[in-house]
Amino acid sequence: MNRQDNNRADLDFVFHPKSVAVIGATAGQILIYNAGNLFLKALIDFAYPGKLYAVGKSGGEVGGMKVYPSVLDIPDEIDFVTVAIPNRFIPQLVEECGQKGVKVMHLFVSGFGEIEDKAGTQLQEEMLRIASKYNIRIIGPNCMGVYCPASRFTMAINFSEISGDVAYLAQSGGQCILGIREANLRGIYFSKAVSYGNAADVNECDLLEYFANDPGTNIITAYIEGTNDGPRLIRVLKETAAKKPVVIFKCAATEGGTHAAVSHTSAIAGSDLTWDSVLNQANVIRVYSAKEMFDVVTILKRCPEPKGLNTLLVGHGGGSCVQATDDCCRAGLKMPLLTEELRKALMEVYITDAGNIFKNPLDINPFMGLEKARAAFKAVADWKETNVVLLQMSPEQDPFVPRIFEYKIQTNIFMELARLSSKPAVIVLNMNTLSFDDGLPEKSFKEMVDKGFAVFPTVDRAAVALKRVYQYYRRQKTQLVA
Amino acid sequence: MNRQDNNRADLDFVFHPKSVAVIGATAGQILIYNAGNLFLKALIDFAYPGKLYAVGKSGGEVGGMKVYPSVLDIPDEIDFVTVAIPNRFIPQLVEECGQKGVKVMHLFVSGFGEIEDKAGTQLQEEMLRIASKYNIRIIGPNCMGVYCPASRFTMAINFSEISGDVAYLAQSGGQCILGIREANLRGIYFSKAVSYGNAADVNECDLLEYFANDPGTNIITAYIEGTNDGPRLIRVLKETAAKKPVVIFKCAATEGGTHAAVSHTSAIAGSDLTWDSVLNQANVIRVYSAKEMFDVVTILKRCPEPKGLNTLLVGHGGGSCVQATDDCCRAGLKMPLLTEELRKALMEVYITDAGNIFKNPLDINPFMGLEKARAAFKAVADWKETNVVLLQMSPEQDPFVPRIFEYKIQTNIFMELARLSSKPAVIVLNMNTLSFDDGLPEKSFKEMVDKGFAVFPTVDRAAVALKRVYQYYRRQKTQLVA
Repeated sequence: MNRQDNNRADLDFVFHPKSVAVIGATAGQILIYNAGNLFLKALIDFAYPGKLYAVGKSGGEVGGMKVYPSVLDIPDEIDFVTVAIPNRFIPQLVEECGQKGVKVMHLFVSGFGEIEDKAGTQLQEEMLRIASKYNIRIIGPNCMGVYCPASRFTMAINFSEISGDVAYLAQSGGQCILGIREANLRGIYFSKAVSYGNAADVNECDLLEYFANDPGTNIITAYIEGTNDGPRLIRVLKETAAKKPVVIFKCAATEGGTHAAVSHTSAIAGSDLTWDSVLNQANVIRVYSAKEMFDVVTILKRCPEPKGLNTLLVGHGGGSCVQATDDCCRAGLKMPLLTEELRKALMEVYITDAGNIFKNPLDINPFMGLEKARAAFKAVADWKETNVVLLQMSPEQDPFVPRIFEYKIQTNIFMELARLSSKPAVIVLNMNTLSFDDGLPEKSFKEMVDKGFAVFPTVDRAAVALKRVYQYYRRQKTQLVA
Repeated sequence: MNRQDNNRADLDFVFHPKSVAVIGATAGQILIYNAGNLFLKALIDFAYPGKLYAVGKSGGEVGGMKVYPSVLDIPDEIDFVTVAIPNRFIPQLVEECGQKGVKVMHLFVSGFGEIEDKAGTQLQEEMLRIASKYNIRIIGPNCMGVYCPASRFTMAINFSEISGDVAYLAQSGGQCILGIREANLRGIYFSKAVSYGNAADVNECDLLEYFANDPGTNIITAYIEGTNDGPRLIRVLKETAAKKPVVIFKCAATEGGTHAAVSHTSAIAGSDLTWDSVLNQANVIRVYSAKEMFDVVTILKRCPEPKGLNTLLVGHGGGSCVQATDDCCRAGLKMPLLTEELRKALMEVYITDAGNIFKNPLDINPFMGLEKARAAFKAVADWKETNVVLLQMSPEQDPFVPRIFEYKIQTNIFMELARLSSKPAVIVLNMNTLSFDDGLPEKSFKEMVDKGFAVFPTVDRAAVALKRVYQYYRRQKTQLVA
């Protein structure tokens, strides 16, 4: 039932509706737990500048807005509707929206192809048949819809108003929301995001094709559980990844996961080995969580291309350095040992290697002062054997310095070192599972993010992301993409 | 040079010094960056109740205490000295401490076996020879020393005053401090901890043997880079792990890591395959970070023994549930599908499976109310096919509810479900890399920790820890430990 009408390949109109109706509003308090009202409230709070209408059988008013009994009663054109009424009312609603000239319907409502009762699948087909008659594009059902900060259009609260150049398509509403918040907190912003649920009409292929050609999008991220059109997806992935970096969190990768996905979005997850092979051949970067997805985006956006895997690890604390070295080596990074010449240069700075490690890792004590740290780092920073610099802060292991000074001093020193690096540099701020109540680790992390650095909470996450991005660039050069 | 004097196998006196001298104090402000003064300050702030003396060539006073020029000038017996003066002064100091009758010397100072110059190794041997003459036990050199909350004795600031039943021995000072803070924040407290550095005298074998017989210790954790006595360590590990759970973070596991470890603590890391085999045969639980170590301890302390790997996953949000299922299956947990009978019981509670998943994972919407969540959970909680319950909160994916309510509601519901469980239950509070400034994820996590629940920040960490602990119990029953 997927429509591939070439005339409609440009989904741009989906993201820039001039008028929106929310179906399923109810009179009274806007903040009661009614999905329709909450969608309205989110759009109002996000300062959506278009015309906004409430539709619901209650009539009356909500938040100062008239509640129209039917979309047909609205005295205006409607581009986009968000639908939060029970599934059984959908065919009639699509019919009415067709008569009204609605272009896009976002079906938040669930109870279609994903439920066990096959009446759900029949309902989905009926809904699509009517939508097709009126040339309406359907987002969903069973999803959260659209986020486009440039249009001040949102699917949830607590999303940034800042536009970026990352697009995100997510089969799951929760993963979409979680991913956007995760990214925003890490200084990554979106051109557009779509939670597309059952993919009854607009599906991952349509969205990938659209984002591939969207001038506002430079990086494409996706959470995908499965596809109903493998051959097209393979082609689209190859074409898309040839144009822009594509990072995919392919979920439902295990037998258990595939069972869950069918019930979640009716997705046919398929063999994970096949997915691995397809993503690999298309040079799509595969990840296993939203966090890993935005780890990769952090490297793509905030570091120049790493020209190899040889890594210079600079940190503080022997045990942390040993662990970091293990983590880097396990992730596939390489750590060449410093030359005798460089070791001598470091001995000249520090006089002794007692309390330090001069091998790679380079373990330098920030409390011997910024001057020494800077001199030591300058001695090795341009070493031609390295391609990447990983700077590791471990303020939580300091024995004695009051935390507020520790964080301030280390944050400043490590940003200074990162600025001195002539190679792509990432900063790892080792964080515990929980913080002390002072919130200092988070503040320090955010300060460095705000200043444009590539920051990670563990060495292994930084190392894995670096490896993935390096492989992406290398394959891009060496692979003939069909 | 390791001494295995059986008469001195009981290291108890190390943890209960009646008098302590810090060598390397300096007159003036106690809070200048002088290690000796900072050790003193930490002990004073921790309310160490024994007699405390400052020794330093400056003479004069620090923090209202007289600074004695030599340990020999102190008009009192001294049990324990902490040493923060340069390595070249150590032989003479050990001689003086011997004359003074000191029982334990903690050498914070580095520049011994771990430095490249072999004069360091010679210095270490000379120091040991003198210590041996006077029967002094050496902790270190190149380490942070001892923490024993029952004695109000500490090696750093920001450590809990609460005693627990977990012992920790760590070859790295930084890993020792980091681990203690990580554990404390997660509600795990220590009987004793030792950072033992170069292990010139007191080594991992001595400490494992001591903790194996220490009545205050029920679980032993360790960060180890290498050993100088493999045969003894193998024997001690087997004997110790037969008595109490032993969790070891064996670091320096890669080629790069072994280079780093030699420079850090002079550790001979050895083949990682050999370590794996040794730890496995001894039924020691191996982990790869301090976080993973205290993940395992969390299960050991806060859950009854899991009788198998069959897991019931209960959560909120389809995408989160699919990801959680993948994570559980990858970690080696099993997820049997719910029976038709149970699925029917759940349909009776929710009327429809639209918006929910009734398979295992069980995806229930907490906003359909505590009553329904409770009823649904009760329907499956005693299912005989499951051994473990994993309860997964994902408050960060809620679209509309103000965060403060979201966290409050979900925290209460999930604690309620955990209480209802007749099987070992863990709660996962899915956390982003960073929090919003409200700190709500951390507060919710801490609330649940304080109430005694086993809480984790990601499903994969919980699942991996559950698998490790299950394997530990199973091997304990089936393995003949020599």
